[in-house]
Amino acid sequence: MSISVSDVMNGLATQQVHGLILILKKAKEYSVESCTDYATLMDARLHPDMYPLSWQLNATLEILIRGSARLSRAEVKGLTLNEDESDFDGLIASVEGLQQKLLGSDSALLDQSEAETFDVPVGPDASMPMTGKEYLLKFLLPNFYFHLTTSYDLLRMSGVAVGKRDYLGVS
Amino acid sequence: MSISVSDVMNGLATQQVHGLILILKKAKEYSVESCTDYATLMDARLHPDMYPLSWQLNATLEILIRGSARLSRAEVKGLTLNEDESDFDGLIASVEGLQQKLLGSDSALLDQSEAETFDVPVGPDASMPMTGKEYLLKFLLPNFYFHLTTSYDLLRMSGVAVGKRDYLGVS
Repeated sequence: MSISVSDVMNGLATQQVHGLILILKKAKEYSVESCTDYATLMDARLHPDMYPLSWQLNATLEILIRGSARLSRAEVKGLTLNEDESDFDGLIASVEGLQQKLLGSDSALLDQSEAETFDVPVGPDASMPMTGKEYLLKFLLPNFYFHLTTSYDLLRMSGVAVGKRDYLGVS
Repeated sequence: MSISVSDVMNGLATQQVHGLILILKKAKEYSVESCTDYATLMDARLHPDMYPLSWQLNATLEILIRGSARLSRAEVKGLTLNEDESDFDGLIASVEGLQQKLLGSDSALLDQSEAETFDVPVGPDASMPMTGKEYLLKFLLPNFYFHLTTSYDLLRMSGVAVGKRDYLGVS
């Protein structure tokens, strides 16, 4: 009985956000080698009515940053990915900055949240009370992995030679 | 400090495998409405050299079933998805059967695994020692969500009207 909220959140920052940075570095290489510009890759989507890669990447980080702030009872404004990036170097630097913010979260505050109750927005006009533990397991984790994997899938579909080891942050 | 291995595993079976069943029911409806046959949908892939949907679905369930067995120190053979299914009804019944197996796991055995050390295969000839907690957070969860989301993405790309609420098992 000893998995803590901070174990999970720190693991996501060290392993999965590191994996995302490896994936984006491969996307940068592919962009150069194939003469595919940044904006074209960022506009990749699985279906015409689905959000593009730029949105998926933003969602991936936003869920983590807002989730960490919410669980720490900290201010959540202005902590998303910089959407004005225009190249991979800027994007990667922005992700690295957010990773550092996440790694700087107060573990004791995160761990206190496990049994506390939070009002979690579940739509434009609705919220649902959840404990920190429920929020982490039922909402934060599945949503984070959804947008991270969809970002990977969009780059894989576009021709970038990413593999599972990149996703797992071990390449 | 009170998230247990069984909390996480039971949550995946009740929420995320339930979500997968909702997604497959929508795929069945789409198959009928669009006259797209089962085999065509199961062969969907993001890139020509990437595994198709049938493989992704099998991987999604296999990670959970083998992971649950490994953490419980139980027999792991013969517990994967039935790959001989030839229609959505058979596939959905197979997933529901695996969900019941997962929900029948012994929570006490799962929870004992948290600090035990396991040799986890990481390639054809290699294994890595991990505690149950490390295996769950660093390997099982990211791999499970990877193949679940990729399965969702392949169906979304194919035209099936699935949404986030299906994925989260709340529709």
